[in-house]
Amino acid sequence: MLATVLHGPGDVRFEHVEEPRILLPTDAIIKLSASCICGSDLWPYRGLQPMNGPAHMGHEYCGIVVDVGSDVTTVKPGQFVVGSFCLSDNTCPHCQHGFQSSCVQREFMSGAQAPYARVPLADGTLVATPEVPPEDLIPSLLAVSDVLGTGWYAADAARVQPGSTVVVVGDGAVGLMGVLSAKQMGAGRIIAMSRHKHRQELALEYGATDIVTERGEAGVAQIKALTGGVGADSVLECVGTQESMRQALQSARPGAMVGYVGVPHGVEFDGQSLFFAQVGMLGGPAPVRRFLPHLMDLVLTRKINPGKVFDLAIPLADVAEGYRAMDERRAIKTLLRV
Amino acid sequence: MLATVLHGPGDVRFEHVEEPRILLPTDAIIKLSASCICGSDLWPYRGLQPMNGPAHMGHEYCGIVVDVGSDVTTVKPGQFVVGSFCLSDNTCPHCQHGFQSSCVQREFMSGAQAPYARVPLADGTLVATPEVPPEDLIPSLLAVSDVLGTGWYAADAARVQPGSTVVVVGDGAVGLMGVLSAKQMGAGRIIAMSRHKHRQELALEYGATDIVTERGEAGVAQIKALTGGVGADSVLECVGTQESMRQALQSARPGAMVGYVGVPHGVEFDGQSLFFAQVGMLGGPAPVRRFLPHLMDLVLTRKINPGKVFDLAIPLADVAEGYRAMDERRAIKTLLRV
Repeated sequence: MLATVLHGPGDVRFEHVEEPRILLPTDAIIKLSASCICGSDLWPYRGLQPMNGPAHMGHEYCGIVVDVGSDVTTVKPGQFVVGSFCLSDNTCPHCQHGFQSSCVQREFMSGAQAPYARVPLADGTLVATPEVPPEDLIPSLLAVSDVLGTGWYAADAARVQPGSTVVVVGDGAVGLMGVLSAKQMGAGRIIAMSRHKHRQELALEYGATDIVTERGEAGVAQIKALTGGVGADSVLECVGTQESMRQALQSARPGAMVGYVGVPHGVEFDGQSLFFAQVGMLGGPAPVRRFLPHLMDLVLTRKINPGKVFDLAIPLADVAEGYRAMDERRAIKTLLRV
Repeated sequence: MLATVLHGPGDVRFEHVEEPRILLPTDAIIKLSASCICGSDLWPYRGLQPMNGPAHMGHEYCGIVVDVGSDVTTVKPGQFVVGSFCLSDNTCPHCQHGFQSSCVQREFMSGAQAPYARVPLADGTLVATPEVPPEDLIPSLLAVSDVLGTGWYAADAARVQPGSTVVVVGDGAVGLMGVLSAKQMGAGRIIAMSRHKHRQELALEYGATDIVTERGEAGVAQIKALTGGVGADSVLECVGTQESMRQALQSARPGAMVGYVGVPHGVEFDGQSLFFAQVGMLGGPAPVRRFLPHLMDLVLTRKINPGKVFDLAIPLADVAEGYRAMDERRAIKTLLRV
């Protein structure tokens, strides 16, 4: 089959690869209903993350099961499934505590920017819908797999409560999903930091009550001005740089939590500063599996529309253009039609 | 009067100082019922923290109000009071959120290793007992002021729940109070890390279920062995060094919280390691004021006996010996009889 392989910085190729097949009795093979490009795919694309040779790209997925290994009992061929970008057995103690992204058997999904993909640990990872969903819900169900699940985790880790004042740092797809998630959790005020008109509009549509366009010290000053000098109860850090993390920490009131989901690149913390700021932190790869049933239900009952975050939809064969569009910030997130 | 002044590393003097008097209408003056030496007093005593000239030592206190400023309404001369080592107005937004240790008017108490002390922000800081308590409860009420309040905050920040598995890093007075606090909060298992027999005994008396004597990698391995390879739900970091913080983070399971109350000295965190460990953190100076009424009640009704942490009681005039005893770890915590 033809699928997406990253050969080096800026070098995305749609080329022949072996079709996936069952390697372990716990595997499933799915036919992708759609695929997409993640903000985190841009780290290696931009040469900001080391690579060990060519990489089969794509970790967000939903689709129809076409084959399962002999140990798989919870899904079967013909079913529509969504899975997390973190593969987990969903039975180990970490999974039982709701942190499936730290499963003792954890693997990260790969190879999903393709017509077919192998999903290891299928029983623990995949959740099937009662029936094959209508076509128009595919983008939203695909979003659940990572970008919505990650934004939701940011809000959960930041302990958003009904009435909370929330700041979202980062106006990428995850940040926008963070806005949606905070809104669903009942936040009273949601301040989105964004300098891009199109993203601001989507943030407002997803529930943002305020937009702050400034960054750095000026951005923090604006947050403080909007919160009577206090700072936010919950901050969602959805970027992963030292600047965005500083912005997040300084936007939080003492006792607040920062949920950080942007993979930190070059981020360091000084213990004493963090201590006296008295700001709590919880981050990590999102345990999407914990949230999957609830988020899939919200989509299937059309209560949320996370799929709107895909503002570019192109054929899978044009995947290289999809990377370029996101790299140049012409697109928030690219859907790949399979 | 004669009081305690630290002139430089190792140089504690009991010498003549001016008697405190009302400087602001929000001040109170108290006659100390007892005073004590804090583990944090040892940082400057050991030369590990810069000093700006001689310092009037002592920030833990309880006693009888002898004078109040014209604005003070909640306490009056003759009443017995306990206050936090963090002075706060208890009305600002941070105080209202329960983080009085980040009060917009916050000051740190000083000069309480003395017969009399000035307490700024008296209305917000002090809590009076219904009547003057019996003499034998004074050590426990004094402990509430900082060491118990700080151990309690560590457990609160680490989100100890009924049934939780808790690790306490540090067998100083705060660590021992962390054990007591976790027990009060209903922890199912409390693992105290301690190499000192006397401290181990007190930890067991306060509710520890297990003692780990190893440190570093061996200590972490022991914690993992005791928790079926999982790690703790909550970790209380009560030291403040890079080694103790590493120990704390590595003892925690993914999704756990580390409550850290040892003032970090030279502690740094790598963002990416923290991200993939998926361990949450909340620290800072303890908002003791939030807990004061509850903790004072637990002492007055004799449900807890935190005062037992004082294993050396000497006259205030011998304060220099009290510092030496704690510095040399001959004493866990020194009570100063006034």
